[in-house]
Amino acid sequence: MSGERLIYLPLGGAGEIGMNAYVYGYGPKGRERLILVDLGVAFPDMDTSPGVDLILPDIAWLEANVSRLEAIFITHAHEDHIGALAHLWERLQKPVYMRKFTATIGRMKFEEAGHPKDAITTVAARPEVVKAGPFEVQFVPVSHSIPESSALIIDTPLGRIVHSGDFKRDATPIVGEGWDDAMLSAIAAERPVKALMCDSTNVFSTHEGRSESTLKEPLSELIKGAGGMVVATTFASNVARLKTLAEAAKAADRSICLLGRAMKRMVSAAEISGVLKDFPRTITPEEALEVPRRNLMLIVTGSQGERRAASAQLARGKYLGIEMKEGDLFLFSSKTIPGNERGVLTIMNGLSEKGVDVQDDAGGKYHVSGHANRPDLEHAHRIFLPDMLLPMHGEHRHLREHMRIAHASGIASVVATNGMMVDISGDEPKVVEYIDAGRSYLDGSVIIGAMDGIVRDRIRMALNGRVMVTVLMDEDDRPLGDAWVELSGLPPRGKTGRAWAEVLESELTDYLEAASRKLLADDDKLSEAMTKIARQVAMEEIGKKPEVTVVISRLAAE
Amino acid sequence: MSGERLIYLPLGGAGEIGMNAYVYGYGPKGRERLILVDLGVAFPDMDTSPGVDLILPDIAWLEANVSRLEAIFITHAHEDHIGALAHLWERLQKPVYMRKFTATIGRMKFEEAGHPKDAITTVAARPEVVKAGPFEVQFVPVSHSIPESSALIIDTPLGRIVHSGDFKRDATPIVGEGWDDAMLSAIAAERPVKALMCDSTNVFSTHEGRSESTLKEPLSELIKGAGGMVVATTFASNVARLKTLAEAAKAADRSICLLGRAMKRMVSAAEISGVLKDFPRTITPEEALEVPRRNLMLIVTGSQGERRAASAQLARGKYLGIEMKEGDLFLFSSKTIPGNERGVLTIMNGLSEKGVDVQDDAGGKYHVSGHANRPDLEHAHRIFLPDMLLPMHGEHRHLREHMRIAHASGIASVVATNGMMVDISGDEPKVVEYIDAGRSYLDGSVIIGAMDGIVRDRIRMALNGRVMVTVLMDEDDRPLGDAWVELSGLPPRGKTGRAWAEVLESELTDYLEAASRKLLADDDKLSEAMTKIARQVAMEEIGKKPEVTVVISRLAAE
Repeated sequence: MSGERLIYLPLGGAGEIGMNAYVYGYGPKGRERLILVDLGVAFPDMDTSPGVDLILPDIAWLEANVSRLEAIFITHAHEDHIGALAHLWERLQKPVYMRKFTATIGRMKFEEAGHPKDAITTVAARPEVVKAGPFEVQFVPVSHSIPESSALIIDTPLGRIVHSGDFKRDATPIVGEGWDDAMLSAIAAERPVKALMCDSTNVFSTHEGRSESTLKEPLSELIKGAGGMVVATTFASNVARLKTLAEAAKAADRSICLLGRAMKRMVSAAEISGVLKDFPRTITPEEALEVPRRNLMLIVTGSQGERRAASAQLARGKYLGIEMKEGDLFLFSSKTIPGNERGVLTIMNGLSEKGVDVQDDAGGKYHVSGHANRPDLEHAHRIFLPDMLLPMHGEHRHLREHMRIAHASGIASVVATNGMMVDISGDEPKVVEYIDAGRSYLDGSVIIGAMDGIVRDRIRMALNGRVMVTVLMDEDDRPLGDAWVELSGLPPRGKTGRAWAEVLESELTDYLEAASRKLLADDDKLSEAMTKIARQVAMEEIGKKPEVTVVISRLAAE
Repeated sequence: MSGERLIYLPLGGAGEIGMNAYVYGYGPKGRERLILVDLGVAFPDMDTSPGVDLILPDIAWLEANVSRLEAIFITHAHEDHIGALAHLWERLQKPVYMRKFTATIGRMKFEEAGHPKDAITTVAARPEVVKAGPFEVQFVPVSHSIPESSALIIDTPLGRIVHSGDFKRDATPIVGEGWDDAMLSAIAAERPVKALMCDSTNVFSTHEGRSESTLKEPLSELIKGAGGMVVATTFASNVARLKTLAEAAKAADRSICLLGRAMKRMVSAAEISGVLKDFPRTITPEEALEVPRRNLMLIVTGSQGERRAASAQLARGKYLGIEMKEGDLFLFSSKTIPGNERGVLTIMNGLSEKGVDVQDDAGGKYHVSGHANRPDLEHAHRIFLPDMLLPMHGEHRHLREHMRIAHASGIASVVATNGMMVDISGDEPKVVEYIDAGRSYLDGSVIIGAMDGIVRDRIRMALNGRVMVTVLMDEDDRPLGDAWVELSGLPPRGKTGRAWAEVLESELTDYLEAASRKLLADDDKLSEAMTKIARQVAMEEIGKKPEVTVVISRLAAE
């Protein structure tokens, strides 16, 4: 047709919070050259993905078009932006660009995965430009809850795109560069912004966001006022918060001990990459055991109630020899992400049983969000004045609300969720194609599809229990001995008190004895009939319809 | 010893929110005559109790002492107070006392369960007195989020106990009796209150609670201002809220349709028992289809995101022919109980996809809690001026906080969680014994113990998947044919792309061929060895350690 087009295709992160992966393309229809921005994970839960280790975007489309892919850009080192990269890079094998702190984390991950570390190129902030096919990309420092978070300027032959990444409007973020109105305005003045792809996480928060630095005083006072040991938890990647907490501890004559692998890794990466300086000296857990409680502060992982993290272990009992007790203080310098409430409350109750005082974020006194609230989003819209706005990084309700805000300012917008390819060549976004863009699961060492039925079978076993039936047939397809039943996750005795597996065995044996030769020779039909009997008996005896596996073993004719 | 004592023993509800069951006893030690207050359920979740229908208190202790049990009192008809009664009554078979509305609900449940309806006696509010052994019990109307919620006055030879039940301080609760300072003060003046057992749910809410009647105006305005169909959800048992919503709809020229079994049941019980009068006329779902959207309001079940309730069905698609669409309004006149967030958000996103506007409680504008906040609890303490306060109806953190508030007012208090028997004969509560008081699960039609291992096995299958191994041995204990492997909830192909069940079959077959006669004759050892192999191969191939069942079928010697 008439030539080149510019496309936007979210493969993750649009219609959910997590698993960010956004594709941009420029070129003739179907032959666009592509770049990928971010490749993150989402986290599994027992309700929908039991036993799964990580949720990854389904990149089948990208893989099928990998010859068109020029490069990968990672905006920042949060797991929902970088977490899938090492797991999926082998299937893409393209150069990856990140800023220094992000690259430090990225290379650690590549090293663990056995990927070449030089696949990752460290890029300085604007004005450095990365050329990737028809795209020219610059990293623009924005403030967030991790060092060196970046928006991207993506210059294309059809105009300038600003991909916001995760950001908040914070001029004094403690660690790293602050939000800079003048610098950002200059970007829009330099070349008009055709499209703004924009973080939508906090679109429902109607007040202006607060700076990370506002926490300094309240946290210092809280820690100074504590009588016993203080334990604080926050996201390990929030290096600024770690610094504020550690400095408050130091000012209160407390030695600082970091607990949890992620905590130490993040501080180390921040120091190596130079974004963190003057972090107070820390002590080891062994040393901490020698320090009077009054002079000790632990900073620990597990702010979201993760069962294996340091916080949960401290709530259950000792961790590395350290035990919390009456008069100690546990601080959640964090907010609970929806879905994690029960885990966090379990920790709070465990600590309560030990007599530990628990302090939550006190409505924002001890925690601020890393994302722009609604007034801050509107501020960003006014700075960039884009022709169109594509809301990203949000559930459907967030994206829709963000679209409405754009519309209210006369900015063209559409809700494009994962898999919706949007043509942004013209003045308005147009959805032009629907790509299969589901979820993959990292399950042990294997990547499986979310719709493969594997996890569905697990959920069914968890809800319904499982019955295994084994029958043995002789060379003439006659039952040899009785049917054998094994139960998993099911009550052994029914309402009447009978061991119902035996009831079922006897019903199955009777059935086999009465069955025709033809049926006995047919594995499928026999299996189906026995499954039906098993479910009927289960329903009568225990009021449940279990999952049933029938194994028919046949002796081979000699 | 010196004679009679007075005891308090929570069997549920103390150390959790839900599953309320509190025992009081008076008499010689170990021979106290007993009464039970409330017998409620808690609700299962996928994380801890997959496949379970309801969580019930473990009443083994009560059953073992049933000859000492005089009667059961139910304070109100919420499921966490009455829900286990019909499931467990058969094991107790004692008279049950309730007020009229509660009894209406109770008799419906007894009828369904096939229990004699006359086991439930309807009692009027104070001054009517029920004598139960050494106890004299009166029902005292308090306001809550269901009609006819009651505190109990429990008079004993050693003094007066006030069991608060669930309450809030609301003088204008729309339906039923309001909180009455004068009447409650008279109770304390009549006879000093020895012990107050007190609701702790909202102890962390620091502002005074607001009346149900404050919702009238905001709800009316919201509904009047809506352009399309309005759908509102709230707890079905909050009959006052249903009335406010229905009246607001009527005032806005909207026909009212109730959707969901619980909704219709509650309104009907409230009308039968006389607590609800003048509820606007409702229409059927069929009639609703004929009404213009602008003139229709649905009041539906499912405020907590329950997957099968009307709200979730409307979010997914049509429900009884009714479909929500662009321009309609969905109102959560409710707050999300911790743990239910994901379910509620799923509904919100489903509605967002349909273009429906979703309104949450707007920070209390469209919903008020049914429980007393901290200042209201302190107010109640001042009215009753008890010698001691036993915090109940709360997780450990709530109970502990409530105890501290009592201590701050010079009231003796202790945190007594489920199973802790407290002697309240003297001036202070003393924990004297620990009773086994866990949870039971209603699972299908069978009641199982939470610690029986049955549900643990389900969780393990959900997390790890399951491998079934079948081997066949001949009359001489030699393997007959190859081992047979079936997978459930596990990826069929490992990292290398191999069908790993086949790899496992061949390893097992090799193992059997090489095994000694002695081992081959030993089911237990053989099973253990094969389980180990199955887990090793799984670990190598798919990086998981599955649950393994080995079935060894042996041909009997002829």
